[in-house]
Amino acid sequence: MNTQFPAERILLGPGPSPVSSRVLRAMAAPTLGHLDPQYLAIMDETCEMLRQVFQTKNPLTFPVSGTGMAGMECAAVNLIEPGDEVIVCVNGVFGGRMKDVMERCGATVHAIEAAWGDIFTFDQIAAALEQHPKTMLVGIVHAETSTGAHQPLEGLDKIVHAHDALLVVDAVTSLGGHELRVDDWGIDAIYSGTQKCLSCPPGLSPVSFSARSLARMDARTTKVQSWYLDISMLRKYYTGGGGGGRVYHHTAPINMTYALREALAIVLEEGLDNRVARHAKMHQRLRAGLEAMGLSYIPKHSLHTLNCIGIPEGANDAGVRKRLLDEYDIEIGAGLGVMAGKAWRIGLMGHGSTVRNVDLVLAALREILR
Amino acid sequence: MNTQFPAERILLGPGPSPVSSRVLRAMAAPTLGHLDPQYLAIMDETCEMLRQVFQTKNPLTFPVSGTGMAGMECAAVNLIEPGDEVIVCVNGVFGGRMKDVMERCGATVHAIEAAWGDIFTFDQIAAALEQHPKTMLVGIVHAETSTGAHQPLEGLDKIVHAHDALLVVDAVTSLGGHELRVDDWGIDAIYSGTQKCLSCPPGLSPVSFSARSLARMDARTTKVQSWYLDISMLRKYYTGGGGGGRVYHHTAPINMTYALREALAIVLEEGLDNRVARHAKMHQRLRAGLEAMGLSYIPKHSLHTLNCIGIPEGANDAGVRKRLLDEYDIEIGAGLGVMAGKAWRIGLMGHGSTVRNVDLVLAALREILR
Repeated sequence: MNTQFPAERILLGPGPSPVSSRVLRAMAAPTLGHLDPQYLAIMDETCEMLRQVFQTKNPLTFPVSGTGMAGMECAAVNLIEPGDEVIVCVNGVFGGRMKDVMERCGATVHAIEAAWGDIFTFDQIAAALEQHPKTMLVGIVHAETSTGAHQPLEGLDKIVHAHDALLVVDAVTSLGGHELRVDDWGIDAIYSGTQKCLSCPPGLSPVSFSARSLARMDARTTKVQSWYLDISMLRKYYTGGGGGGRVYHHTAPINMTYALREALAIVLEEGLDNRVARHAKMHQRLRAGLEAMGLSYIPKHSLHTLNCIGIPEGANDAGVRKRLLDEYDIEIGAGLGVMAGKAWRIGLMGHGSTVRNVDLVLAALREILR
Repeated sequence: MNTQFPAERILLGPGPSPVSSRVLRAMAAPTLGHLDPQYLAIMDETCEMLRQVFQTKNPLTFPVSGTGMAGMECAAVNLIEPGDEVIVCVNGVFGGRMKDVMERCGATVHAIEAAWGDIFTFDQIAAALEQHPKTMLVGIVHAETSTGAHQPLEGLDKIVHAHDALLVVDAVTSLGGHELRVDDWGIDAIYSGTQKCLSCPPGLSPVSFSARSLARMDARTTKVQSWYLDISMLRKYYTGGGGGGRVYHHTAPINMTYALREALAIVLEEGLDNRVARHAKMHQRLRAGLEAMGLSYIPKHSLHTLNCIGIPEGANDAGVRKRLLDEYDIEIGAGLGVMAGKAWRIGLMGHGSTVRNVDLVLAALREILR
């Protein structure tokens, strides 16, 4: 039976991002057992590198065995008990999802809103905390993939912790591409995806939880509603925590772990500061080119990793994207949610954030939009 | 940064099983976007092959983006609403987990038990249904990975459906290695793993749901507690069902899908009947060798895919397994749950179920146990 080999696309959408051959090769190494001492060493090494990339010392830092949304769900189900009050900041699809996921955990969600493309001021969040004093958690999206908005986070912990609440951050499209300092910024729970700025195939969701989050989990009086994502069991496998050494929970995605380990090694070889600077520079290069063509950015405070631009008057949304894919093998993203038909999303993430890709997508757009 | 390359183990434990180089190579193909027409075609092809391997025409047949336990949780969260009464058959770790997972969905679980290593008679299940007439679901494990017991299923649907309940089957360690006919056997929901008899790395959980299951989901009055596993949304991505064509839900594990597609192609090239016959033959060969050494099987009705044997008097459990791993690069499984320290589990699954592996593990055990 012949299976068709996939084309070599240039992935400049909202993710997955291009994966280096080095990571693909690492992923194809022989499969080990999930309790093999060699595999446990690889998992430990992966978690240690994740700590470096998250800039945290949190022992409970590991890749959840699912894609980014599994990480969001992991944070929600472990921190929330039915009846808890939480604040979720909604300015796009992923804030909306966080609200939905937390409601499914039985939370009473106080959603605060900003226009799509806008960001939240700390005053707005502080006011919501004053209004809802029983709030035990504030959820916010660092990099809103649906709008390209870049939410500042530094200092927000002071406000959230003053109300004895936990700071939960969606960093799916920022980890490894934007400055993100989990410990310095007092983040209590954070989740990301492998297929964005880490340039690893999708399939794992790196997460990290602070001691404050762990204390909250330890104080639960109800079982976590998800067995698969229950940290009281997962931590025994990933950290040997809770006594009794490492305990089997589920079969981890072995080869995906190889891929993530290699992708993280590449990130650390480049250095976080260099990598963040590269993403900034490529964003500026793309932005200059797009604006020179008369295209404009939707968010005022744009991500470097994802460029969300308005579709110009008269251009055929699907037609342009199809030509990019068919003639150039370039994938860019359509608008999502209320942005559907109004925006394009050009990702410059990880291995894909290069001069070559910026210049290529600009040249292609110039030709197609001419 | 140098990452260590994994050793080439011979995986004869309870999974993962050995992965062929063809599957590893397929997995390392360039990553496509999850909405790329090429990727959607690959996903469609994968789902169609899954239907053939499950022997079902169920449109809702797809790989859940998580390992086997995510498949179990997917079945539970979508079928069960709080307060539902269910029957779960518990004769090992995985029946016990099904009970736990379903309780976390708010079900009242009537557990019926058999000794570890034993199987259930249909009379026992019928009696439980008589006793609990409000039962909406019967959960049972086809291949109990913790004990090696092989549960017959053919005809059970008549009893379960007569009580207007759904038949939910755990086929993690049987799909692709044992006879398993989803439609003929009237199974309403089934989940498996990729890393057992399909010989694909872990990371996906094939599932299939009957029309009866879908009707139950459509009649829900409460939201599914897991966003990540909510079939009302997932079906729009995997089948375009529910109207409106394919809709983005989460980023599927692209490269894992390549691997699964290739693994399924290999299964279908061999042919299901041939494959089942090969697993039977290799089991008999191993069994003859083990029994000639004086070792004995724990289950009366053993799986062909997993051989659960008692640890012989005087043998050092961990020491023997360590020698197998260190000197022969052979992984076998320890006992799980109440079998810990009492049993070894030798898997002969998929690509690993070969004369070569049977003879090698027998030779190694003969030498070590001498």
